[in-house]
Amino acid sequence: MAAAAEQQQQQQQQGFRPLDEASLVAYIKATPALAARLGGSLDALTIKEVGDGNLNFVYIVLSDAGSVVIKQALPYIRCVGDSWPMTRERAYFEASALQKHRGLCPDHVPEVYHFDRAMSLIGMRYIEPPHIILRKGLIAGVEYPLLAEHMADYMAKTLFFTSLLYNSTTDHKKGVAQYCDNVEMCRLTEQVVFSDPYMLAKYNRCTSPFLDNDAAAVREDAELKLEIAELKSMFIERAQALLHGDLHTGSIMVTPDSTQVIDPEFAFYGPMGYDIGAFLGNLILAYFSQDGHADQANDRKAYKKWILKTIEDSWNLFHKKFVELWNKHKDGNGEAYLPPIYNSSELLRLAQKKYMTSLFHDSLGFGSAKMIRRIVGIAHVEDFESIEDASKRASCERRALNCAKAILKGRRQFESIGQVIVHVQSFDRD
Amino acid sequence: MAAAAEQQQQQQQQGFRPLDEASLVAYIKATPALAARLGGSLDALTIKEVGDGNLNFVYIVLSDAGSVVIKQALPYIRCVGDSWPMTRERAYFEASALQKHRGLCPDHVPEVYHFDRAMSLIGMRYIEPPHIILRKGLIAGVEYPLLAEHMADYMAKTLFFTSLLYNSTTDHKKGVAQYCDNVEMCRLTEQVVFSDPYMLAKYNRCTSPFLDNDAAAVREDAELKLEIAELKSMFIERAQALLHGDLHTGSIMVTPDSTQVIDPEFAFYGPMGYDIGAFLGNLILAYFSQDGHADQANDRKAYKKWILKTIEDSWNLFHKKFVELWNKHKDGNGEAYLPPIYNSSELLRLAQKKYMTSLFHDSLGFGSAKMIRRIVGIAHVEDFESIEDASKRASCERRALNCAKAILKGRRQFESIGQVIVHVQSFDRD
Repeated sequence: MAAAAEQQQQQQQQGFRPLDEASLVAYIKATPALAARLGGSLDALTIKEVGDGNLNFVYIVLSDAGSVVIKQALPYIRCVGDSWPMTRERAYFEASALQKHRGLCPDHVPEVYHFDRAMSLIGMRYIEPPHIILRKGLIAGVEYPLLAEHMADYMAKTLFFTSLLYNSTTDHKKGVAQYCDNVEMCRLTEQVVFSDPYMLAKYNRCTSPFLDNDAAAVREDAELKLEIAELKSMFIERAQALLHGDLHTGSIMVTPDSTQVIDPEFAFYGPMGYDIGAFLGNLILAYFSQDGHADQANDRKAYKKWILKTIEDSWNLFHKKFVELWNKHKDGNGEAYLPPIYNSSELLRLAQKKYMTSLFHDSLGFGSAKMIRRIVGIAHVEDFESIEDASKRASCERRALNCAKAILKGRRQFESIGQVIVHVQSFDRD
Repeated sequence: MAAAAEQQQQQQQQGFRPLDEASLVAYIKATPALAARLGGSLDALTIKEVGDGNLNFVYIVLSDAGSVVIKQALPYIRCVGDSWPMTRERAYFEASALQKHRGLCPDHVPEVYHFDRAMSLIGMRYIEPPHIILRKGLIAGVEYPLLAEHMADYMAKTLFFTSLLYNSTTDHKKGVAQYCDNVEMCRLTEQVVFSDPYMLAKYNRCTSPFLDNDAAAVREDAELKLEIAELKSMFIERAQALLHGDLHTGSIMVTPDSTQVIDPEFAFYGPMGYDIGAFLGNLILAYFSQDGHADQANDRKAYKKWILKTIEDSWNLFHKKFVELWNKHKDGNGEAYLPPIYNSSELLRLAQKKYMTSLFHDSLGFGSAKMIRRIVGIAHVEDFESIEDASKRASCERRALNCAKAILKGRRQFESIGQVIVHVQSFDRD
């Protein structure tokens, strides 16, 4: 209690107070950047709290004339039945990354209207209906014909333009230094993705008792643990680009025409493959969950094909767009590949092939790690959780887990995403 | 002139003024930490300037009662006939790294008595005669029986204790952020080690005309240029440990009993193999230069054997000491390999083997890159430069260059330092 009181006092001294609906209205009225978005009629706002209230407050604020979303970080993070202290500064990194990434890819990143560091508060675009969270669309079996194209665009632009292929070392190291301070969020990832699933840990869970042996097998798999150590070191040590840091299908809002990436509070300079893998890995999880959602009306077979096509297109289009950006900007400020050295189209092509192959293998490694942690770690995905029959759920999860383990261990053998798709399909039977 | 005047004015505003002998005495008298080292008789100091006067001022200051070295950075760096602007803040990073590394390895790092950031001035231990620069000892053909043991000790301690094997991610990222600001020095390295030797660059030189074709061949070697790109990216992106950053044989002072590592002004968080490679690569350069120093009185054959033995022992002892530190501290704060995951001595041994093999290959890559740049890049080594007969010098250099190119390309094939030694010897003929 004393500690809580002290914390509250500190927060007040620092200008922080958690908002409720009433104080939110006053805050908006006092903040021109927000008031302007809502038009003049600030006395008739509709306000809906849509966060879970334990991690962040997220308010949708509507007026006749406009809308905003207000997101406020609280000094803790909710994780499966317990509260976990966590710096509010994550709001600063979220706002910074949104602004940076929106500058690079305005079509797929919402606009930040206002950021208040003391209040850990972001005022941003309300991503209006019919946008829904992609994960929910995947569970519902909805096809998004532009998803691969849009995500390839987002990943290519945000990763390329924050890497040494585009920036000078000086600018790059400035960014790295800035985001080093988001270390609490990085440590959270390290723990829940790269550590806990491979040991006995308090918050681990799985579809028990069906997967108990599978979870134990993960903890006893020496080869897997050697590979995960390599990925974990790369995650911490390698500042390759400014990552979203949590690019799963729950961080993407979609309609058939629009794709918006939100929630980059885990943003930091890390290995590009971590973002790409998060997206691809979560699509593969969605794929393996489909049998649990099939019914007589819809066997989901066509939808499974669409998911596989989306995985394949996402990588291939990302590859194409990324290399196009590289070619377009090869004579720019980027210091990694100087034109007087990589001075023929053939040599540049070889360099790009080597770079992209390495990035492909990193993406497969990180993607697999993200799949494994969603099955035997703390945080599961709704794709599986919404399958009510535990035995059926476990069967879907086991296929995903075995597929991920095999990809992680053998990732350097894959030469194309097409081979990965064939591999994924081979696990589509018990 | 206006720019120079402006710079001078700025420097004065910031409290900077270059010292001369007279103002140095006044400075020492006003600085208790320095005065105390020299005893009471500050009116009869012997002062000798031993820097080249264009890069740093280095004063040896002696009194009856004691001694200090005063090193002051100037806002530029001398490089082969031209002046090159360079931040004085390198003195801050040099002092920080000296203090950090001395805390970890007091036997082989000199003590810093005083640091004045505004003046870019370090007051430190005078490493007294008969200490000489190791490179000069190697040219003279002097054996240092403890060198391998001492350098293995220095490298194991400074690299292990500043890595994630010993530190929490939080502490690690703090250090990374701090040293990101030494970016100008990192960029200098990128240019002179990883870029210029592989292109036509203003300051490149070689023993012409003998090596003109060899230098051209380096610039046209696609395989080499693909490998160097990978090493360059690793150099910039991978914050594995706090490196010395310039650990060649000119940064080491020795007697048969003592080894002192100086001049870490290039310190930053980078890949461990860069430091190890710098040391080993410069020993291999010394090896190939010996034929140029042989005469009737001394054919240098025994000495060449000693150098090879020192290379072999340096790596093997480093390996042994590094793994010993890992084992000793495996239950500490290091977050890379958590004991509940790497929970058997067999698994930990496998993890260490994988880690050390990867570090070995990195070291060979960076070591080769350092050799190549000393033959066809801007800054050459006295080991070769002191061979007066250009034809003989070129012959020694060519063997070193060819050896380095082969190691760089084939580094992942080597399983032990013994195999590398055999490889080096195979180039010991024209």
